Amino acid sequence: MRTTVGIIGAGPAGLLLARLLHNAGIDSVVLESRDRAYVEHRQRAGILEQGTVDVLREAGAGERMDHEGLCHDGIELRFDRTRHRVDFPGLTGGRSVMVYAQTEVCKDLIALQLEEGGPLLFEAEALAVEGADTDHPRVRFRHAGVEDVLECSYVVGCDGFWGIARQAIPAELTRVFERTYPFGWLGILADVPPSHDELVYARHDRGFALLSMRSPSVSRLYLQVPEGTDAESWGDEEIWDELERRFETDDDWTLERGPITQKSVTPMRSYVHEPMRHGRLFLAGDAAHIVPPTGAKGLNLAVGDVVTFARALIHERETGSADLLDAYSATCLRRIWQAERFSYDMTALLHRAPDATPFEDRLQVARLERIASSRAAEADLAEAYTGFPFG
Amino acid sequence: MRTTVGIIGAGPAGLLLARLLHNAGIDSVVLESRDRAYVEHRQRAGILEQGTVDVLREAGAGERMDHEGLCHDGIELRFDRTRHRVDFPGLTGGRSVMVYAQTEVCKDLIALQLEEGGPLLFEAEALAVEGADTDHPRVRFRHAGVEDVLECSYVVGCDGFWGIARQAIPAELTRVFERTYPFGWLGILADVPPSHDELVYARHDRGFALLSMRSPSVSRLYLQVPEGTDAESWGDEEIWDELERRFETDDDWTLERGPITQKSVTPMRSYVHEPMRHGRLFLAGDAAHIVPPTGAKGLNLAVGDVVTFARALIHERETGSADLLDAYSATCLRRIWQAERFSYDMTALLHRAPDATPFEDRLQVARLERIASSRAAEADLAEAYTGFPFG
Repeated sequence: MRTTVGIIGAGPAGLLLARLLHNAGIDSVVLESRDRAYVEHRQRAGILEQGTVDVLREAGAGERMDHEGLCHDGIELRFDRTRHRVDFPGLTGGRSVMVYAQTEVCKDLIALQLEEGGPLLFEAEALAVEGADTDHPRVRFRHAGVEDVLECSYVVGCDGFWGIARQAIPAELTRVFERTYPFGWLGILADVPPSHDELVYARHDRGFALLSMRSPSVSRLYLQVPEGTDAESWGDEEIWDELERRFETDDDWTLERGPITQKSVTPMRSYVHEPMRHGRLFLAGDAAHIVPPTGAKGLNLAVGDVVTFARALIHERETGSADLLDAYSATCLRRIWQAERFSYDMTALLHRAPDATPFEDRLQVARLERIASSRAAEADLAEAYTGFPFG
Repeated sequence: MRTTVGIIGAGPAGLLLARLLHNAGIDSVVLESRDRAYVEHRQRAGILEQGTVDVLREAGAGERMDHEGLCHDGIELRFDRTRHRVDFPGLTGGRSVMVYAQTEVCKDLIALQLEEGGPLLFEAEALAVEGADTDHPRVRFRHAGVEDVLECSYVVGCDGFWGIARQAIPAELTRVFERTYPFGWLGILADVPPSHDELVYARHDRGFALLSMRSPSVSRLYLQVPEGTDAESWGDEEIWDELERRFETDDDWTLERGPITQKSVTPMRSYVHEPMRHGRLFLAGDAAHIVPPTGAKGLNLAVGDVVTFARALIHERETGSADLLDAYSATCLRRIWQAERFSYDMTALLHRAPDATPFEDRLQVARLERIASSRAAEADLAEAYTGFPFG
């Protein structure tokens, strides 16, 4: 097989890239190791930044999102029996975010790709990227039990944190930046309308809690739990009880309970792989960087990466200049480090470390009080939450 | 001896309080364990917030400050070969800071007190506060070898971190919040005009450096050094060499050297004692709280405390209501925790921890880039640096 851009991975990064290239008349092949049902149902992020929404619309992939997605103009912070709403449009000159699950973005992009785009092979496992530093990089893969080779002009690794693309960058050229956290998120899906119409981020001495939603009838809720917690060790009523405690529900605001349909624990990690490019191999999304989910940045970073790559390749096609391709890693990393910083800060602001001192507890509350009392501090958060500019 | 307000300590907190009370027609006695020369020459802070400047002027203690102090409209941040100036008035609606050393504030207040105010006893060592929870608190002290008692209506402990006033608050009512840092500041005074007309805060892989000044002809410079460093272990030329490295001086900006006249190491600590009041005993300034010097907040917090106390006592005299006195601790602590937070953040932003990971190094640079690129983030810093409102 031969194509211009070989894309490893059919998560949102790989699928959107294929769409952007297709729209620009550049052919690609997408290799995905899992089957279609798996890709369409794995629960991930659900908050799209303004810039992500705009890109999906421009790419012709925004129709269902605009019908079913929920536009959110703010979030609520809860701490120390205080509630504070952060008004995004008022603080950022009109920006907001969209609640629309990653699973739905993937379904939309898969349908478009199969209908209009180039080849999208499920259960096609990439084994190795070869010749990244030559003009003819290749992806060896296995599909339907047979090994094959995809000959490319460029390879983009969108194959996530556990993917193989990254391994083709020589270790001696690589720097890894990493942090793990001594806690994770116990997340549930519940068949009950969300008890608040915007996301609620709660800082509590017992740990962080988050109220989110997938749709007007499905709630998504999270509890900070110790690292390595088994989701099944938490009973359903126990989860609701703990959520109530951390949200400090009262007569003014109660938490509606409903059947829990899914329960899982997400670990928390910060990770950056530098550089994100080696010769004609480019990394995008989780293949190059991970953020803890507190800032809702993971999916949006992946979108920024593939937009940057697509623009750079189109520029090369139109002008013959590889300048933007050469700048890919540096361009992406500026935005990524801002998102790493924000995700780290939101995590530190709201989670209780197992060894937190009374001094650190008070600092957290003082930080939240600062956000609630200074328009500048609040705007800093709102700007970052609604998204840093692409490239 | 008998007075309305017994003040322990003739640092800026105690001296300013005596002045504010004198101006309101309330008598006080100040007990200071050291001699006058010591108090007038111990090197401490040098940055007065806008609110502190206003209070000193209103108290009739601003004349020399207004002649000799240097009004500063910004600071410079240096990191990763980048220079960024933070413009205070432009970001805060007109606020700035004044460079005028604490030693000079003390000299001015001592002169006024001795000329116009109530008794100010040097070498008068407070031994204990007794009866804090009665209507007649007393300070036992030793002066000129003789033990004596000061009978008061109120006692204000302005006797610093090592003072005795705090001990009169029962341990079972007390909560202490504390953090120490694994580094300190090696500070020098040098007889050379400052090489930059505003303060320069430098983040460097070798550690933090700060250029400050005492006057147009005297520079004050600091280097981050490991905790417990002996100032004498650093040679003069070695200090200048290290400052040049951390400031990344170049053809555009050179560091003028001059004779070093003083050299000392300041430890770094965050500390808050709650509550700040017990009955008729009130704590003010370092007696109740310490911040690391990075945010230049220590002296300004002390001023805020005594302004809050003076207003509360005047209110009680005028209205008979003790409401503001009763609220003293809570009122002060709101501002103190904001300053603790800011001082911690500025310290974490600019210092290199001995065990810093590459991830943390990048976060610091990303944070500084955020300040340099977002008006909101920059305004958040400028507001905090120029000062939180009193009470």
